[in-house]
Amino acid sequence: MERVVRVFEAFDPETPSLSVGELAARANLPGSTASRLVDQLVTYGLLRRDAQRRVRIGVRMWELAARASPTQALREVAMPFMEDVQAIVGHHTQLGLREGHEVLFVERISARGAVANITKVAGRLPLHASSGGLVLLAHSPPAVLEAVLNGPLRAYTDATITDPVMLRRVLADVRQQEFALGAGYIDPAATGVAVPIRDPRGRVVAALSIVVPNDHQAIAGVGILRTAARGLERTLRGPARS
Amino acid sequence: MERVVRVFEAFDPETPSLSVGELAARANLPGSTASRLVDQLVTYGLLRRDAQRRVRIGVRMWELAARASPTQALREVAMPFMEDVQAIVGHHTQLGLREGHEVLFVERISARGAVANITKVAGRLPLHASSGGLVLLAHSPPAVLEAVLNGPLRAYTDATITDPVMLRRVLADVRQQEFALGAGYIDPAATGVAVPIRDPRGRVVAALSIVVPNDHQAIAGVGILRTAARGLERTLRGPARS
Repeated sequence: MERVVRVFEAFDPETPSLSVGELAARANLPGSTASRLVDQLVTYGLLRRDAQRRVRIGVRMWELAARASPTQALREVAMPFMEDVQAIVGHHTQLGLREGHEVLFVERISARGAVANITKVAGRLPLHASSGGLVLLAHSPPAVLEAVLNGPLRAYTDATITDPVMLRRVLADVRQQEFALGAGYIDPAATGVAVPIRDPRGRVVAALSIVVPNDHQAIAGVGILRTAARGLERTLRGPARS
Repeated sequence: MERVVRVFEAFDPETPSLSVGELAARANLPGSTASRLVDQLVTYGLLRRDAQRRVRIGVRMWELAARASPTQALREVAMPFMEDVQAIVGHHTQLGLREGHEVLFVERISARGAVANITKVAGRLPLHASSGGLVLLAHSPPAVLEAVLNGPLRAYTDATITDPVMLRRVLADVRQQEFALGAGYIDPAATGVAVPIRDPRGRVVAALSIVVPNDHQAIAGVGILRTAARGLERTLRGPARS
């Protein structure tokens, strides 16, 4: 089973298709083993071969994962509120969860002509380097927080926070102000703004964020995001208390 | 590997969580085998245990499937156009692909207060029983078409087409008119309207559809869907020819 997992992990948002040789190299498997596993997984529809005989994730794999996905319920509740934010702000709107020491983006709505944005649906970023990540990190268990503070803090730009003392101070502000603002952390031309999404028990389960140009009034996004977050949280609580 | 596939296939949109015993029964596996497979898959994050110790699909499984998904590119292109339709029509808007003899819904936008709709994201319906399915069936390879016409045609309501002669005639109309309209095929109170989405080579790759109440002017939806479909198809062709 571990080899099957390695085959799946060979794919990422930047490399959605691989030759069998590339796949074998990425999965660290002998070519003959990779070839046999691919044949089996294609039979089950979990992988497929495209017109150029390159291997891709199959629709069946997506279906199995999506139809019982733990993120699907949150995505469906969040989508109308994300559309509201997108309609008002006119820039990227995204929803992220914490997975380990990274933020995993489970949904994104983009506008034509919006500022560049490196995040993708099912893409990841380190927690310290994005506004959504800062919100999630600020509300992480102590063990996660300490591990991130002790680990290497990768610099994407001169503005990325790489000093653990500074990061700890920023996280205290995020907790107190209930939003995070990251100007140029990943792209010098873009500012991220994020607010927490809490489940009915008050735990932070996601971050709702926008990515806007630096000259945009990013701080005005805080109120918009908070308004959408309240609607989203009320829907999560269900009709009885809405 | 086949047993792993059976474990995943035990989940569906109506049963997103299972006890190990339920999972063993659904996957037709001995309890001890199911228990061991679940433990392994939880280790890799492909399954997870919730607070009630019930087994669910893991976020990691969703991530692996979604980030290189063959449906992701189409979904991302389609989403703004689906939002446009949703904003104008105010009812369910959905995007379906043909998978075998069924339509697989890869995206859905719903409105509060919209008519009931049994489709779900990553849910399926038989091709003959929904407007999106009729569009996809009308443009299916001859082998698929004949298999569906020869197979049992399940009746959901009195209005579902179950006569192969009638179905063949309806499909000819769908091909000629470039839309399908299904009144009460699945729910007596709902009408589906669908149009084809063609790739740059002119092949029908998806169906864009709405589900509206029967008293709604469903036929007015055809023009709205066609307008959105043209924009979507132009985006699929890329900037050079837009």
